[in-house]
Amino acid sequence: MEGRELTYLDNAATTFPKPRRVIERMNDLMQNSGGNPGRSSHVLAIKASETVFECREELSDFFGAAGPEQVCFSLNATSSLNFCIKGLLHRGDHVLISDMEHNAVLRPVYRLWRDGVIDYSVFPTFVLEDDGRKTKIIHGILSKLRRNTRMIICSGASNLCSMTMPLAEIGELCRREGILFVVDGAQCAGHIPISLEEMKIDALCIPSHKGLLGPQGCGAAILGKGVMPKTLIEGGNGINSLEADTSGELPERYEAGTLPTPAIAGLCEGVRTVRALGIERIAEHERELFRRALIGLSQIEGVKVYCPHHEGSVLLFNKDGIDSEELCLALSERGICTRGGYHCSALGHKTLGTTNGGALRVSFGVYNSSYDVDKLCEALREI
Amino acid sequence: MEGRELTYLDNAATTFPKPRRVIERMNDLMQNSGGNPGRSSHVLAIKASETVFECREELSDFFGAAGPEQVCFSLNATSSLNFCIKGLLHRGDHVLISDMEHNAVLRPVYRLWRDGVIDYSVFPTFVLEDDGRKTKIIHGILSKLRRNTRMIICSGASNLCSMTMPLAEIGELCRREGILFVVDGAQCAGHIPISLEEMKIDALCIPSHKGLLGPQGCGAAILGKGVMPKTLIEGGNGINSLEADTSGELPERYEAGTLPTPAIAGLCEGVRTVRALGIERIAEHERELFRRALIGLSQIEGVKVYCPHHEGSVLLFNKDGIDSEELCLALSERGICTRGGYHCSALGHKTLGTTNGGALRVSFGVYNSSYDVDKLCEALREI
Repeated sequence: MEGRELTYLDNAATTFPKPRRVIERMNDLMQNSGGNPGRSSHVLAIKASETVFECREELSDFFGAAGPEQVCFSLNATSSLNFCIKGLLHRGDHVLISDMEHNAVLRPVYRLWRDGVIDYSVFPTFVLEDDGRKTKIIHGILSKLRRNTRMIICSGASNLCSMTMPLAEIGELCRREGILFVVDGAQCAGHIPISLEEMKIDALCIPSHKGLLGPQGCGAAILGKGVMPKTLIEGGNGINSLEADTSGELPERYEAGTLPTPAIAGLCEGVRTVRALGIERIAEHERELFRRALIGLSQIEGVKVYCPHHEGSVLLFNKDGIDSEELCLALSERGICTRGGYHCSALGHKTLGTTNGGALRVSFGVYNSSYDVDKLCEALREI
Repeated sequence: MEGRELTYLDNAATTFPKPRRVIERMNDLMQNSGGNPGRSSHVLAIKASETVFECREELSDFFGAAGPEQVCFSLNATSSLNFCIKGLLHRGDHVLISDMEHNAVLRPVYRLWRDGVIDYSVFPTFVLEDDGRKTKIIHGILSKLRRNTRMIICSGASNLCSMTMPLAEIGELCRREGILFVVDGAQCAGHIPISLEEMKIDALCIPSHKGLLGPQGCGAAILGKGVMPKTLIEGGNGINSLEADTSGELPERYEAGTLPTPAIAGLCEGVRTVRALGIERIAEHERELFRRALIGLSQIEGVKVYCPHHEGSVLLFNKDGIDSEELCLALSERGICTRGGYHCSALGHKTLGTTNGGALRVSFGVYNSSYDVDKLCEALREI
C-alpha cells in the first residue's frame, strides 16, 4: 500500500489506497492481454474476453446474482442508474425514491418527470429518528404507493451518513406488489452484504472504485433474472453485426462500444480483496472506527454529529463557527482528506437540514486505522 | 514496449502495445493521485482534477478545439456518439450518414428512427471507385439533402478500409447550410490530422484506445463552440449540488458520476506520444506498410483486396476458399492478430458487397514494422 503519509478519510468519494494486486493486475493486462474483448479470435482478444468474464463471475457470485451474464458493465454507477431508470420506466409510470437519495438517482428521475414521462414521489426514511426505523421506512413507502407505482429506487447505504436501508423488506414488498426494485449500491457495495436473490433486487448499480476497491472508470448494473431494460446506448457490441437494430442477449446487448478492460481487470482483484478480507469483518472494522470517532468528536466543543445512531463507514458533522468547506481545507492542510459541502445530495441535505453550507463528511475504508481517527480528532481540536 | 513476440495487426480494434509512458502514468496516478476529481479540495482530489484538466488541454490543442472545456469525457467513442446524436437531434429532424458508417453511428440513428423521432438517409461514398472521389462524396450528400436535414454524421476514416472523408469540404457545406457536423473519430484520431476549427466540425467523438494510444475505458466528445446538447446521463457532477436539474457549463454538465481518471491519465500520455512522433509521420508510416502489404498480397493467389487505392492504416481482403473468420483463426495460430467477420459495420459491408462472410481486416499502427507485413504475407502463402 502506498500514500500512507496522508490520512485519507474520503473513502465514500473513492477509496484510497488501492490494493497492490489491483494495480498489478491492471498493469499486467495493459502489457500482456491488451486486446479488445469480444472483438476477434486472436490470443490477445481472447485473453481480454476472459478477463472480462472473470470479473462478471466474481461480481455475480459476490452479489448473489443469477449468473455472470447478468452483469452489464458501464462507466460508473451513475451511468448504470441512468440505464436502469430510463430503460425500465414507461410513460405514465410513478416512481418512489427515498429522501436520502444521491443526485445520481434524483437527477435522472427528475429529468424524466420534467420531460413529462413519469411522476415521482419521495418517501421519508426518518433518518434523524432512532427507534423502530425499519418498520417506519416501510410505512413511509406504503403511504406513498400509487396504483401506477412501477419502481422503487433507494441507496443501500447513504452517502451522507451511515444509514442503511431495509433492502430485504423493501424487496419483499416490491415482489408482492409487482414493483421493480432498483438499488443504488454506490455506498453499500463492499461495505455491507448484499444479495440480489435474497433481497429480491431487480437491478443493483455499483461503482468499481469505492468499497469494491477497484479503479475509477468502471461501473455495472447487475440485473435480476428476466429484467430487460431498453438500451440507453446503442452501437457495435460484436453481436449480430449486420443488423441495424440492437439485438442479442445479456450482457452484450447493453455494452455498446469497447469495454473498460483495464478497469474491469482491476475491479476483479478489488472484489477478490474484499471477499478475502470478509465483508462482515470490513463492516465491523468500519463500525469500530465510527464509534471511536464519535467518542473523539463528543469531546470537542461545538461539534454536531448527524445521525450518530447509524454506525458505519460514513460520519457527517459540523463544527460551530466554521463552514464545512473551510474545515475541509483546514484539515487538508494538516494532511487529512475529507469532504465538505453538499456531496452531490440535494435530497439528503434537505432531509438533514444542512442546505445552508452542507457538512463535513469523514468516510472510513478498510485501510483506515484508529490512528487515522485519532489524527482527525487531534486536528479538529486544534482548528 | 512489450508483447513483441506476437505480430499484432488488429490496431483498428485497439492499439497494442501501448507506450510505456501510458502504463507508467496510470500506475503513478493509481498510487499517488488517486482522489476523485472535482469532488473535494484535498490534495489527492486536486491532483486528480489536475490530471483530468491536463488531458483536456492536450486533446483540445491536438484537435484544434476552442478550449479544454470543450472536451467532455465518457466511456468510449460509442457513448460520445450516442450523446451527440440523441442530445442534438429533435423530433422531425432528418439526418444524413454515409454508407460506410460503423454500427456506433447507424444503431443510435436507427433507434431514433424506429422510435419515430427522426428520419435518416444514407449517402454514397463511392468507396469502390477510384477517381474524383471527394467531389463525388459532396455530390452524394447534396443529392440526399432535405429542407429538414439537421445533421450529417460521418467517420473521418472507415474501419473497414483506408478511405478517409473530405471533412473540410463537408464541414464547409454544413456551416453554409446550417447543418450540424458530427464526426466519428474512432479510426482517424491519431492516424490523420483533424482540426475542429479548420474543418468546421461541431462534435468530434474519439476513443482513447485506438490511434491515440491510450488505454481502453475512456472516450470524449469534443464540442464546437456554442454546441450544447441535451444531457444523456444525469447525476452528481460536483456542480450546483442542491439542484435537481442538471445545470452548469461544459464540460461538467455532461460528465455525471466519477470520471475514469486512470484511463484519462493514460490517454494524456498517449496523445503526447502521438504528438511527439508527429501525426504526418505516423500517417506516412502506415501508408508505407499498406503499400508493402498490397505488393505482398498481390503475389498470393486468390486474394482480393477491397479499395486498394485508399492507402492508410486499414487493409481489407478475402482469400478464395476460406472464410474470413477461419482465416483469422489460422493466422492467430501463427501468432498473427487480425480480425475477420463484419467488424460491427452493417452498412460498410453492404456497401463493399461482403455481407456473405465478411472479410479479413489487417490494421497497422505506429509500432508495426515491415517485418510484421512480411510475416503476414508469408503466413498467407502457407495457409
